[in-house]
Amino acid sequence: MFFFNIEFFGYFAAFLTTAAFLPQLIKTIKTKKADDVSLITLIMFLCGLLSWIIYGYQISSIPIVTANLITFLLNLLILISKLSFSKK
Amino acid sequence: MFFFNIEFFGYFAAFLTTAAFLPQLIKTIKTKKADDVSLITLIMFLCGLLSWIIYGYQISSIPIVTANLITFLLNLLILISKLSFSKK
Repeated sequence: MFFFNIEFFGYFAAFLTTAAFLPQLIKTIKTKKADDVSLITLIMFLCGLLSWIIYGYQISSIPIVTANLITFLLNLLILISKLSFSKK
Repeated sequence: MFFFNIEFFGYFAAFLTTAAFLPQLIKTIKTKKADDVSLITLIMFLCGLLSWIIYGYQISSIPIVTANLITFLLNLLILISKLSFSKK
């Protein structure tokens, strides 16, 4: 059964925890506001994702590097948007 | 050298991407506001974390289950806070 396949949950999990940040980025750009989004959370999360990328590279895991790189880029864009909108 | 140890980055990454959501929860409770936090992001992220927990359980990985369970609980509290404050 495809739905209960172990690998399915792994890929499904990686897709969701990566793609999840796209709606936040779109919302931030649309509303030009992210005051309620914690700056400390964004910085800690970005540092964590960077560590995952280094770890993934060290253990030669393409899925870990890819998923965390996309999540890193999305959150970096959220951080840049938040900072640029808060200055205005 | 401890700092360049492969496992170090794995644990450091897991700690940061888990603990990162505590400042968001504290901020949300303190300001009683999370309008700028995307509801779709929270729901997708929670579904993704739940899938990671199921995947971790299936492959008998205690670190995957533990890290994602804590992240899940923190984000569930952020979602509950957001929804309860937005009603007021």
